[in-house]
Amino acid sequence: MGVQDLPAQREAVPHLTTALRGPLLTLERHFLDRQAAIEAWFREQWQRTPAPFYASVDLRNAGFKLAPVDTNLFPAGFNNLAPAFLPLCVQAAQAALERLCPEARGVLVVPESHTRNVHYLESLATLQDILAKAGYLVRIGSLLPDLEGPRELELPGGRRLCLEPLRRRGDRVGVEGFEPCLVLLNHDLAGGVPEILQGLAQRITPPVAMGWAHRSKGEHFALYREVVREFAALVDIDPWLIEPLFLRCGEIDFARREGEDCLVRNVEQLLEAVRRKYEAHGIRREPFVVVKADAGTYGMGVLMVRSPEELRRLNRRQRSRMRTTKGGQPITRVLLQEGVYTFETWAPGGEGEGAVAEPVVYLIDHFVVGGFYRVHRARGPDENLNAPGMAFEPLAFAEPCNTPEAGQDPDARPNRFYAYGVVARLAVLAAARELARLRT
Amino acid sequence: MGVQDLPAQREAVPHLTTALRGPLLTLERHFLDRQAAIEAWFREQWQRTPAPFYASVDLRNAGFKLAPVDTNLFPAGFNNLAPAFLPLCVQAAQAALERLCPEARGVLVVPESHTRNVHYLESLATLQDILAKAGYLVRIGSLLPDLEGPRELELPGGRRLCLEPLRRRGDRVGVEGFEPCLVLLNHDLAGGVPEILQGLAQRITPPVAMGWAHRSKGEHFALYREVVREFAALVDIDPWLIEPLFLRCGEIDFARREGEDCLVRNVEQLLEAVRRKYEAHGIRREPFVVVKADAGTYGMGVLMVRSPEELRRLNRRQRSRMRTTKGGQPITRVLLQEGVYTFETWAPGGEGEGAVAEPVVYLIDHFVVGGFYRVHRARGPDENLNAPGMAFEPLAFAEPCNTPEAGQDPDARPNRFYAYGVVARLAVLAAARELARLRT
Repeated sequence: MGVQDLPAQREAVPHLTTALRGPLLTLERHFLDRQAAIEAWFREQWQRTPAPFYASVDLRNAGFKLAPVDTNLFPAGFNNLAPAFLPLCVQAAQAALERLCPEARGVLVVPESHTRNVHYLESLATLQDILAKAGYLVRIGSLLPDLEGPRELELPGGRRLCLEPLRRRGDRVGVEGFEPCLVLLNHDLAGGVPEILQGLAQRITPPVAMGWAHRSKGEHFALYREVVREFAALVDIDPWLIEPLFLRCGEIDFARREGEDCLVRNVEQLLEAVRRKYEAHGIRREPFVVVKADAGTYGMGVLMVRSPEELRRLNRRQRSRMRTTKGGQPITRVLLQEGVYTFETWAPGGEGEGAVAEPVVYLIDHFVVGGFYRVHRARGPDENLNAPGMAFEPLAFAEPCNTPEAGQDPDARPNRFYAYGVVARLAVLAAARELARLRT
Repeated sequence: MGVQDLPAQREAVPHLTTALRGPLLTLERHFLDRQAAIEAWFREQWQRTPAPFYASVDLRNAGFKLAPVDTNLFPAGFNNLAPAFLPLCVQAAQAALERLCPEARGVLVVPESHTRNVHYLESLATLQDILAKAGYLVRIGSLLPDLEGPRELELPGGRRLCLEPLRRRGDRVGVEGFEPCLVLLNHDLAGGVPEILQGLAQRITPPVAMGWAHRSKGEHFALYREVVREFAALVDIDPWLIEPLFLRCGEIDFARREGEDCLVRNVEQLLEAVRRKYEAHGIRREPFVVVKADAGTYGMGVLMVRSPEELRRLNRRQRSRMRTTKGGQPITRVLLQEGVYTFETWAPGGEGEGAVAEPVVYLIDHFVVGGFYRVHRARGPDENLNAPGMAFEPLAFAEPCNTPEAGQDPDARPNRFYAYGVVARLAVLAAARELARLRT
């Protein structure tokens, strides 16, 4: 079933499992009551540490807690946003580009090279459309090694996309006859920074040092912890309600079973910490831990474990899957993250068991411009919904995240989306602090 | 018939009378083909002369020309915008307020005092809602002389609005317990700047000197002429296609018939100028001239004339209507403006004679956030659709003005709206230059 077969999107907001409603409503109520203070705080933060050009944040909503589990600075999936919110993206892109590069007239987009992934290509076409509508000349400079000249692609949705070979002249890159002052990176550089993008005189955003070859999830979540400490004090909540606990592990080699003892100890320690939190908050669930590559992407190199023994009993296939991530990059460091259940479910017919849904929130600059749910029928609430080859159905948010209605119930749609937007912005603020570190 | 009785708004775009399509399509095509250059030019302009906080621009679309006829810096009518575009207003307000007053946490709105006009009150409630959703504490400090304490109003749409008496303490104004650093003026100060608003230490936006007691339509259109000269050179069009010709008259007293000879001569001269333009562009229409108070507002003090004789033959009632504008302010200077036919019509049933429609475009900062049509059944294409007591039907634009589709026809809806947005921004740029003059 494709997204077009889904019933009218106005009823398309996943429902929280009722039993777990209590605490999250408290959280949403908290946010609503303190909206002006929260927004003033964010404004101050963005002035100190400007947001990256764009981001998507994977959230998990356990009912009792709402937390980010991944912050992507080279987002794809723009095609999954509701077309009605395209104007919001356009306006935010205008504000972002005016700030980043006031004199720019054109933008060169450097995309990922996987041209067989039509979802990615549709996202790229949407991104190009957003930038063009924002009033820029936009061309796509591809890193594809076998690209000799412009390649026109016709997408399943009927749009056309033109990939052109990226060329370097001196300290500038461009495509034939087009060398704008702004290069927008939509490639996560998991395999390192290609030479052609090193030491450019042009402004390249996000900076190449924010690629996965340099970035570390552990560092991101360490900064997220700082952000959450400050924010939780402001709104007077237990920081844990919006943060997954985590531990970092040093050198590890899954195939050779090197570093495994340390890993097992850490898993044990983290499970115990989560268990204590569950007890304190009266949550009767079994804690689990997510082991993920510290520089992983595309949901690769991710493992869910419920006990240290489970980790010891990994079979050869499981171990081999944890050896490399996207592009065959070896995994040497891992992040242990508290597993956050996702108890948002979506029952199209309103009956029976719902499909599990995970919200993904999109930002351009510090503006929340929309989002969608990854909806998966076959997976459980404690599983990773962004796995290689997984067939999730994207379900666009029916409303934007910037129109909270304080007069309505905390779980009224605009307010649910507002809470998403707050937590996603906290994650992007952590990324903004990563960016600021690069500059100092 | 109210707007809620209108058929589905997705089909609600007025149609241009077919015979007059040609030249305007050329204009729209011009804009589309030069979109990136136009947007780059606007960006540069806004950096030099920042836009006023908000504005609404009345346009007239004659098919062969598309021109602004009034630029309001204290807009009402926010309630007429499509609710779907509220997020766009919220986001633009965030960007505007961050720029104007980064440290602000609250906004004090000073509205018009006509509390019997429910349309105005609905607009005020929408404005408050936009600012609140943008993350500010918002309260309304009224200039109503008889207001002793907070007055709660319940609006027909079900919303509540609380007016509080504006109080001054030293060089700051506020309402009980609320003296934010930002005062947003939604009062056009046609009667002069009240003492309570003079010499404030707080930032007041738009500045009081932009009120109608100081502002002059003549000056606005003189600056608009400059803007249009530059823009027309950029996009290579006859400036007249987007500008109403005008002449200014000095001291005048309609009741005493003082200054009338000069007025008649000027009307004659202007009609002749328009006639020559009509001939040059092959337009078979009778020119007309609009006589309007130089500091007029609310569509008051407006007269349409087709010949100098018509002006001489004004009866006592017509003369008396031209003596004063809003709040009984005497009219002493007038602007003579080329009358622009409005050939946009809207036939709800798709048959018969259409109602005449006039687009009104809204901006917050330099972002076009939406608009609506004034639709009037009883009036002709050469009449003023914003007249006191007139019963226009507001018809929200079905799409935003910032998503042009270069691949579609120039008169495809997104493109029609884009052209509106371009011309409206030119008018607001003229207002930005008025603002800049205040500051030098």
